[in-house]
Amino acid sequence: MKLCRFGPRGQEMPGLIDADGRLRDLSGHLADITPADLSPAGLSRLASLDPLSLPVVEGTPRFGVPVTGTSTFIAIGLNYADHAAESNLPIPTEPVVFNKWINCLNGPNDPVVIPKASGKTDWEVELGVVIGTRASHVAEGDALSHVAGYVVINDVSERHWQQERGPTWDKGKGFPTFGPVGPWLVTADEVGDPQDLSMWLDVNGRRMQDGSTRTMIFTVAQIIAYCSQFVTLQPGDIITTGTPPGVGLGQKPQPWYLKAGDVVTLGIQRLGEQRQEFIAWSPEV
Amino acid sequence: MKLCRFGPRGQEMPGLIDADGRLRDLSGHLADITPADLSPAGLSRLASLDPLSLPVVEGTPRFGVPVTGTSTFIAIGLNYADHAAESNLPIPTEPVVFNKWINCLNGPNDPVVIPKASGKTDWEVELGVVIGTRASHVAEGDALSHVAGYVVINDVSERHWQQERGPTWDKGKGFPTFGPVGPWLVTADEVGDPQDLSMWLDVNGRRMQDGSTRTMIFTVAQIIAYCSQFVTLQPGDIITTGTPPGVGLGQKPQPWYLKAGDVVTLGIQRLGEQRQEFIAWSPEV
Repeated sequence: MKLCRFGPRGQEMPGLIDADGRLRDLSGHLADITPADLSPAGLSRLASLDPLSLPVVEGTPRFGVPVTGTSTFIAIGLNYADHAAESNLPIPTEPVVFNKWINCLNGPNDPVVIPKASGKTDWEVELGVVIGTRASHVAEGDALSHVAGYVVINDVSERHWQQERGPTWDKGKGFPTFGPVGPWLVTADEVGDPQDLSMWLDVNGRRMQDGSTRTMIFTVAQIIAYCSQFVTLQPGDIITTGTPPGVGLGQKPQPWYLKAGDVVTLGIQRLGEQRQEFIAWSPEV
Repeated sequence: MKLCRFGPRGQEMPGLIDADGRLRDLSGHLADITPADLSPAGLSRLASLDPLSLPVVEGTPRFGVPVTGTSTFIAIGLNYADHAAESNLPIPTEPVVFNKWINCLNGPNDPVVIPKASGKTDWEVELGVVIGTRASHVAEGDALSHVAGYVVINDVSERHWQQERGPTWDKGKGFPTFGPVGPWLVTADEVGDPQDLSMWLDVNGRRMQDGSTRTMIFTVAQIIAYCSQFVTLQPGDIITTGTPPGVGLGQKPQPWYLKAGDVVTLGIQRLGEQRQEFIAWSPEV
């Protein structure tokens, strides 16, 4: 099942993508896609609906973040060995964990704002995990049972704020619009093995990242089990699991970064694609 | 004005502390203390009520976090020079920013859980700032106009997870119950200068921290202005502004930490007091 939210920001309606890729309107059955709808019972109720009975949505509406009510947005750093190398950082012996401020959440195709005076705005295609049931101190073997589904995420990063402005990374990871999520949440049953998904990212049509979740250092199950030791994961919470090589920071002979007008497109096998125009900061954005 | 939320967890009702320190029930006038109630208009509406017209609440109900709907809980590290020294860390040249996971929020007198296998659970009395109006790229001179009020916070920390488990601090700062806030939100008009508040913390009745917000490295106004460059602050968001010396990590000849059964009491001038019993982790807590 592919669940989404469509419509103008703040007025999104729940939707579903049918087997033919058509957007169907779920609003006759639920008001929004909330954390409660991500429980096994909630998903089961939605799965019992006949998609063909739902109204087709005409046109090409905006997509929002496919779930509302996220309270924690965790990110994992350096989770692909080649990306750690290109960042000139050691391969971690346990997951590197940081935070994306919750109000950086952004629709998958919404413009992304380059922060005021930023010189180092960078891209990162990542597999995102959406939690379906509360997870505290879960074992690795049970961890995937807490997953409602998966999403594409661009873990947009301002490298100067992240790496050169003090000992933590959080400053450079959560500027408003820095968390595009979607276009839809694909339920875990439909994704299969989260460790076998190809992923890619282009800047202005040029392939920059071309990887697979096969080469993660820590698997999705390991990450969930690990994080659940120090934070209780709630339905609707999102974990973005790190990026393969090819970010701006890692370019040779020298790094290069995004500027206003650049277009980033990215996707993950079975999870859909995103497209973002990067725009200059102004007081209005 | 002193605003609070009282009653069992998840069923808190809005309240107000009157000039004689009595708890009054605000639920006849609003359903809860939400971010919208913290706007100048919202606070002005509450200030127009005659406290003596509100029902007195008898007994000694539990206090919850005094505002609901917080989406971002920012913490500032090493903001008192003596505390940086006791932590064996350099005095920062700009604010150190980290995150407390949102579901660590806890009532001011609720038990605090020592994480499973933790050996280094520590205390930190801190001045908390509650945002009243959206703040993005605000100037230092305007920053305090975005503050709804102030609260006492114990920035409970697990030092092993914070300092020895990878390059970021977030792992050790947001375990469930690690964010006691309250007992009430004191509106900014009633607090006066946030840079002249004495603060203290006792462990089992022994004075461990005895400081004043006068000795902050970065002022509340500077912190708000700084943070608003990389995260848009929303009404209800909380910033906890760092701790003075005297934490467990800084004890001589060697650090010592909290164990089950310890009682921590703390307070800040004009903002009230907290009392927490620290309890052992179990799967039920």
